[in-house]
Amino acid sequence: MRFEVDSPLTSHISQLINMNLIVLKKNDFIDNENVILKERRFKHLKRVNKVKKNQELSCGLLNGKIGKGKITTISDNFIGMRVSLESDPPVPLPLTLVLSLPRPKMLKRIIENITSLGVKKIYLINSWRVEKSYWQSPLLNEDQLEQYMILGLEQSCDTILPTIYQKRFFTQFVKDELPLIAKDSIRITAHPKAFKKCPSSVKNKTTLVIGPEGGFIDKEVETLENIGFSTCHIGQRILKVETAVISLIARLFL
Amino acid sequence: MRFEVDSPLTSHISQLINMNLIVLKKNDFIDNENVILKERRFKHLKRVNKVKKNQELSCGLLNGKIGKGKITTISDNFIGMRVSLESDPPVPLPLTLVLSLPRPKMLKRIIENITSLGVKKIYLINSWRVEKSYWQSPLLNEDQLEQYMILGLEQSCDTILPTIYQKRFFTQFVKDELPLIAKDSIRITAHPKAFKKCPSSVKNKTTLVIGPEGGFIDKEVETLENIGFSTCHIGQRILKVETAVISLIARLFL
Repeated sequence: MRFEVDSPLTSHISQLINMNLIVLKKNDFIDNENVILKERRFKHLKRVNKVKKNQELSCGLLNGKIGKGKITTISDNFIGMRVSLESDPPVPLPLTLVLSLPRPKMLKRIIENITSLGVKKIYLINSWRVEKSYWQSPLLNEDQLEQYMILGLEQSCDTILPTIYQKRFFTQFVKDELPLIAKDSIRITAHPKAFKKCPSSVKNKTTLVIGPEGGFIDKEVETLENIGFSTCHIGQRILKVETAVISLIARLFL
Repeated sequence: MRFEVDSPLTSHISQLINMNLIVLKKNDFIDNENVILKERRFKHLKRVNKVKKNQELSCGLLNGKIGKGKITTISDNFIGMRVSLESDPPVPLPLTLVLSLPRPKMLKRIIENITSLGVKKIYLINSWRVEKSYWQSPLLNEDQLEQYMILGLEQSCDTILPTIYQKRFFTQFVKDELPLIAKDSIRITAHPKAFKKCPSSVKNKTTLVIGPEGGFIDKEVETLENIGFSTCHIGQRILKVETAVISLIARLFL
């Protein structure tokens, strides 16, 4: 039944498939070095990874160090592990991403993807072509967003949870808050109709603003230009927002 | 009901949302310059784009020129357009992509994404960590694959349909066919554990080989190295295949 694409089974599996690092929370610990994993992580380790006692697995403490965990117990509903966490997580990208709120289905994947790429500061903003109804999505509540970010961290062996801010007033945000947020950074608005090509292999702090499907309207681009944002493209092809976000980050930093 | 993420309605809408260019087929033409659009394209233009008589839209002939179409008729079940196609489609990427068959759900998005990025030659291959069952997926039949490619062309205003080859025997393909396919091209195997960083801003013909979730096994990497493939990474983070594919293409060419 693998190929019934939207069946609960496969969508469950797809959420589980890439746990390259187990992200531990403080309340997983029963003492200084022992953790108990239940529910999603338990099921994943037992069914997908088919782990065995004494097996060593990569793990890390949310917003903390990474290291190894050795499985001490496998019961019917939990796994016990003794962990030792000594290394630093991978270096974050020097990027603040300002993204027009995408439609909810795409938002999930974008948050997971950009977390796996190492983005740590994300502003979801309103703009002219953002459908107002998107702001009502239950996916925007903090617990939901955290779940997608954790999937991205598990994928890329990272522990540092990004911070997501939600800003519902474009002009107010761009005029009153963005100048301070983008201070001392390279400032780029991505826009397929721009004349200038987006820079590549950047090492410096960068603020990247990305429009919605259909793009920013001219007035929005101008508002951003007025506070020092340079309007840049990555080629003449119009890409889906989720493809454009990854492409821009890869061109800028990878 | 926008947010019932997997409802037939939203999944229908999501397929329709980005038709930046209408891809015409020869059998859409009723004479030299008039076309009739029915079903998916009709519904999209009427419901999503809310087109009006005399409106001009971007369109292009599959594997041919692009231009404009002017709406001459809107009936209850078709739209008539008079088209004039004179420009060349955008330049393709000089890339042959060799991709370990991803799981079907991801394959759909990857095919759509890489088509929108301008990839024209795709080999789907087997490798050790590809689940054998993936090869049974109905998504691999040519009509299905063509649908995803058309979505990618519509997104990026292109008309040239990529060619997809399916190769089920890794060693036979790599030893007997790949040397000729990759002749005179830059040859790269993407591998997160490589020592060498992937090149960027490439202009030349390139053959890029990408492994499955979990990566190629060492022997596969060696087999590729033996025919001149250089093993490269784009950073220490492990990315999902669909994220890695876009990131690699962006770093190489965008």
